[in-house]
Amino acid sequence: MIGRTQWAIAEGYIPEGSHGPEPEMTSHETICFLNAGDEDAHVEITIFFEDRDPVGPYEVTVPAQRTEHVQFNDFEDPEPIPQGTAFASTIESDQPIVCQHTRLDSRQAENALLSTVPYAGEQ
Amino acid sequence: MIGRTQWAIAEGYIPEGSHGPEPEMTSHETICFLNAGDEDAHVEITIFFEDRDPVGPYEVTVPAQRTEHVQFNDFEDPEPIPQGTAFASTIESDQPIVCQHTRLDSRQAENALLSTVPYAGEQ
Amino acid sequence: MIGRTQWAIAEGYIPEGSHGPEPEMTSHETICFLNAGDEDAHVEITIFFEDRDPVGPYEVTVPAQRTEHVQFNDFEDPEPIPQGTAFASTIESDQPIVCQHTRLDSRQAENALLSTVPYAGEQ
Amino acid sequence: MIGRTQWAIAEGYIPEGSHGPEPEMTSHETICFLNAGDEDAHVEITIFFEDRDPVGPYEVTVPAQRTEHVQFNDFEDPEPIPQGTAFASTIESDQPIVCQHTRLDSRQAENALLSTVPYAGEQ
Repeated sequence: MIGRTQWAIAEGYIPEGSHGPEPEMTSHETICFLNAGDEDAHVEITIFFEDRDPVGPYEVTVPAQRTEHVQFNDFEDPEPIPQGTAFASTIESDQPIVCQHTRLDSRQAENALLSTVPYAGEQ
Repeated sequence: MIGRTQWAIAEGYIPEGSHGPEPEMTSHETICFLNAGDEDAHVEITIFFEDRDPVGPYEVTVPAQRTEHVQFNDFEDPEPIPQGTAFASTIESDQPIVCQHTRLDSRQAENALLSTVPYAGEQ
Repeated sequence: MIGRTQWAIAEGYIPEGSHGPEPEMTSHETICFLNAGDEDAHVEITIFFEDRDPVGPYEVTVPAQRTEHVQFNDFEDPEPIPQGTAFASTIESDQPIVCQHTRLDSRQAENALLSTVPYAGEQ
Repeated sequence: MIGRTQWAIAEGYIPEGSHGPEPEMTSHETICFLNAGDEDAHVEITIFFEDRDPVGPYEVTVPAQRTEHVQFNDFEDPEPIPQGTAFASTIESDQPIVCQHTRLDSRQAENALLSTVPYAGEQ
C-alpha cells in the first residue's frame, strides 16, 4: 500500500493573531493526510520547539480510504501550539500514509502559499 | 527508464466558482506527467475525500516521449470533482512516469502558485 | 559524493512575451545545479512536449565545486524553447549533481514564486 | 531515528539590501533543522558559488529534541554570504536531522514564499 509510517516537517509557523475570525485569520498551517489503505490509520504528531521540550502526541485518526486535512491552529490536546513561534513536527502512523504540508492564505479563496511533501522516513 | 508507477498527492482543492470563464477562473489544479519512455503510459487516477468513498479511476494516456498537463477541473468521467472540497489522489501507471503537482494562477499569465513533486511509491 | 546522475522535471512553462527587457520579463524558469564533487559535470537536458518529438540535448557544464543557475529562456542550441507552451525535461549528468527547479519573479527583486527539488532517478 | 546526515540545497539567493532594518528587509533565506534524536547534532554548512571556490564550513549546533531555524543572512564566520549572488549549499551532520529550505517574506507577517525539502543524501 502506498505511503510511509514516519514523516517529519522541519518548518512550521502560525502567525500571531491568526486565531481571530476571518479575514483576520490570514493563513492556516495544514497537514494533509492520505490513507489509501483498508485499515484506519492512528497518527501521532509531536511538536518540537527551539527552546523547550517537545509537546505531544497529538492524536488524529485518518479513516481507511479517506483524506484528512488537519490544521495546526486547531490542535488543543495536550495544549495549543503557540503563535509567532518556530516549530517542527514528526508524524508516526500505524498504517502507511502520505503527507503534504500546505500553508493556505484565506484572503485569496484558499489559494496555497506553499505546499511540499515532507521528509519520509524509512519504510 | 526514469520514473515510478505509483504516485500520491495528499492535497487537492478546486476553489468554488473556478469553472467560470476567465478571469473568474482564478486557478487551475494541475498534474503534470512526463513519460520519457518508449511505450505509451496508461494512467489511472483515484480521488479520495474526507467523508465519502473514493471515486475513479479517471483514465489518462500519456504517449511515449511526451508530457501531458492535466487539470483536475476538467475531469468528467466517472464524475466531476466537486468544488470547494478537500481531496487527495493516487496515480497508477503501467509505465514509469514522473509527476509534478502544480497550482496555476491564471490572473498572472500562468504563473504557478505552488509546485511540488508528489510522493513516489516503490519502483 | 552527494547527488544523482538522472533527474526529471515534469512541469515547465515560459510565459509569452517573457523575452522582452525587464520589467516586461516577468519570470524566469530556472534549473539550479550543484556539483559538489571534484570533477566537472557534463549535463545533457532533453525537452519534452505535449504534441511533438523531444528536442535536445541542450549541453551545460557545471564545473567541479560550483553551482550553476541556468534559465530555460536562454536555451538556443539546438533551438529556443517556445513560449506559452507546456514542456517537461530530463537531465542526465556524467557526475552526481543536485538539481532544484525554481521560478523567479523579477518584479520582486528575484523573489522565487516556486522552488522544488525535482524527481531524482536511481543512483 | 528519523533523518539523514547529508543534505544539499541547489538554490540560494539573498536579495540586495536585505540586511537593512524591516520593512527594508523583504525576505529571509532560511534553513529549518529538526533534530528529533537524543544527541546534539553538529552541523557543517558549505556554500558554493558560480565563479569562485566554496566557503565554509559554517557551524551550527542543533540540540537534541529541538528545531533550529537558521538564516543564511546571519552567517558571519568564516565570512558573510554576499547579497545579490546565486549560491548553493551542502549540509553535513554527525546525527540524523531533517532539513527544510524556506524563503520568508517579512512584509506579510512571516508568510513563506516557498518551502521545499532539499535533496537528502544516502543514509
